[in-house]
Amino acid sequence: GSVDKGVDFAQYFCTYSFLYHQKEMLCDRAVLDVGTGSGILAIWSAQAGARKVYAVEATKMAEHARALVKANNLQDVVEVIEGSIEDITLPEKVDVIISEWMGYFLLRESMFDSVICARDRWLKPTGVMYPSHARMWVAPIRSGLGEHKMGDYESSMDEWSNFVDETKTDYGVDMSVLSKPFSEEQKKYYLQTSLWNNLHPNQVIGSTALLKEIDCLTATVNDILEVRADIRSSITLENTRFCGYGGWFDVHFRGRKEDPTQQEIELTTAPSVDYGTHWGQQVFLMHPPIHVSDGDDLRVSFSMNRSNENHRLMEAEFHCEIQQTSGKLIPRFSNKFYIE
Amino acid sequence: GSVDKGVDFAQYFCTYSFLYHQKEMLCDRAVLDVGTGSGILAIWSAQAGARKVYAVEATKMAEHARALVKANNLQDVVEVIEGSIEDITLPEKVDVIISEWMGYFLLRESMFDSVICARDRWLKPTGVMYPSHARMWVAPIRSGLGEHKMGDYESSMDEWSNFVDETKTDYGVDMSVLSKPFSEEQKKYYLQTSLWNNLHPNQVIGSTALLKEIDCLTATVNDILEVRADIRSSITLENTRFCGYGGWFDVHFRGRKEDPTQQEIELTTAPSVDYGTHWGQQVFLMHPPIHVSDGDDLRVSFSMNRSNENHRLMEAEFHCEIQQTSGKLIPRFSNKFYIE
Ligand SMILES: Nc1ncnc2c1ncn2[C@@H]1O[C@H](CSCC[C@H](N)C(=O)O)[C@@H](O)[C@H]1O
Ligand SMILES: Nc1ncnc2c1ncn2[C@@H]1O[C@H](CSCC[C@H](N)C(=O)O)[C@@H](O)[C@H]1O
Repeated sequence: GSVDKGVDFAQYFCTYSFLYHQKEMLCDRAVLDVGTGSGILAIWSAQAGARKVYAVEATKMAEHARALVKANNLQDVVEVIEGSIEDITLPEKVDVIISEWMGYFLLRESMFDSVICARDRWLKPTGVMYPSHARMWVAPIRSGLGEHKMGDYESSMDEWSNFVDETKTDYGVDMSVLSKPFSEEQKKYYLQTSLWNNLHPNQVIGSTALLKEIDCLTATVNDILEVRADIRSSITLENTRFCGYGGWFDVHFRGRKEDPTQQEIELTTAPSVDYGTHWGQQVFLMHPPIHVSDGDDLRVSFSMNRSNENHRLMEAEFHCEIQQTSGKLIPRFSNKFYIE
Repeated sequence: GSVDKGVDFAQYFCTYSFLYHQKEMLCDRAVLDVGTGSGILAIWSAQAGARKVYAVEATKMAEHARALVKANNLQDVVEVIEGSIEDITLPEKVDVIISEWMGYFLLRESMFDSVICARDRWLKPTGVMYPSHARMWVAPIRSGLGEHKMGDYESSMDEWSNFVDETKTDYGVDMSVLSKPFSEEQKKYYLQTSLWNNLHPNQVIGSTALLKEIDCLTATVNDILEVRADIRSSITLENTRFCGYGGWFDVHFRGRKEDPTQQEIELTTAPSVDYGTHWGQQVFLMHPPIHVSDGDDLRVSFSMNRSNENHRLMEAEFHCEIQQTSGKLIPRFSNKFYIE
């Protein structure tokens, strides 16, 4: 059994706030918590008045959840079930599905697949999803990280080059045929892998654009296999460097159209000085940056797919052209990134 | 395909030196390189005069090996075969098996299993293993790392404790039932996981003891599933701190009893000021350290097993009693570690 040491507990409190403010949605209802972890959301649901909470957890964490439920004297309401949501059965359909399924840049790790499966099998036709909606956002950013990464890439290539020389001179083996694949591998690693970052809001240099909106009640696995969007962003800073893109997400708790919450709650992972989350933002850096200025118009075609090698990871592509206020057009350029 | 960026090329040169100095062992012989990676050992074998080299590699690295062989005009001698050594077939038995199979603390990653398999299927009865022998060593050490790790553990527990208090006061959930499993998890992570370290020779505070000697020609998978040894070590420093154990290995290239090399080569990963390797040493720290002095006699029962959860990883146990020069006996104390 293991208690995840990486957990950022701040998220619990954010999420809790919706359970607390939306008691009316849980009172006397049957609830399913998909991936209960330590059991905390299940417990809060019970405290908010749920009639019954099924708390499903695939890992040995289920044992801790059971202990925590017991210690809080909620074992009559919360039933912890160890198993994959795909495999288990419940004695009834539920009114509410809650889950903290969001990965980096929303979809990394693909846990939403499991939530969809839970919904299609166990949610009543009148049921409510918690969260009910999710959105992905992107904006142009400036950042000094790109230079660091470029420096790392360059010293790695310098080392390689020395190694190739030495191997040739001292050991009679010509390794230069591997220089190209080696450099591609290093580029991928240092320059084309997106980074976790806690952006400061003033690193965002243009308007934020919506990449995707998900209605958790109706989205299918197919809908989230790929994300595609043609978006625009206007640069909002005089004379600055367009270093790449920042991506993040938010989720909402609105209940259901026929059964809306009294008060809508938002959990956002946008750049913020005071309210960082463990999700941070996903940063995609270009090499080198491009000089832009106030009013320049970015037109970006974005696409994101699951990686063939590991479907929990993803690949993103940005095709961008820039219409400058001067009238000049910077023709389309493309950047591909791995989200690992 | 990928060129492993983590490779420390220094090891090639060490290993090369044996191929270079033992040309007589390779001349006109058929050689199998188990896990050829970039193909470098296969190429050196060919350059040393081998008649034929079969270079087997399980990953896409095989493509790079093939390109490297071609670029060095050795495609008539070196045949690169992509596949697991367990699955492939060769057109003949070989005179020599070479492999760079050693993991951290020799046996982590368990690649020697594959070398044994190759030997039992493809080595002629008169064949030679390269390396021919391997040994594991341990010695008592001093180190400041233990205090760091203890500090990390303590701040993690402080954070947890604040979290438990807040959750109780502000959110009405008593999480204290998870404090014990959480602390055990954190202890395991910070205090009971062995560490990679490049020890300075003056951190070794007592005599070095042999844990295991492996004859690569005869060892079975069973022989290396478990390592057990009762060893002794004398403290060689006045008034010092016994902070834990350092472990490392060496391998030898001796040929075979009936067919010994003219010159024996050793590759050691012992603590060294000038000749560090990417293997470093494996460090097992105790909390707190124990005061010892010159002449104190450590009697240690050591055992190491593969972890049940992941057989490429291992668990080690040290039971130690100390006979002090004063005559006093510090009774047996035990430490368990995870090698991850
Ligand atoms: N298919 C599946 N079935 C059951 N549990 C799953 C699952 N996929 C992921 N999980 C679990 O879902 C959890 C997501 S982390 C969220 C934990 C908890 N609800 C909280 O808010 O703190 C993990 O514990 C993971 O093991
Ligand atoms: N069972 C197996 N069959 C074939 N190759 C294997 C294997 N197990 C591990 N390997 C490969 O063995 C290599 C070990 S690293 C050593 C690479 C090279 N001989 C050198 O000296 O630089 C890795 O490339 C790994 O992919």
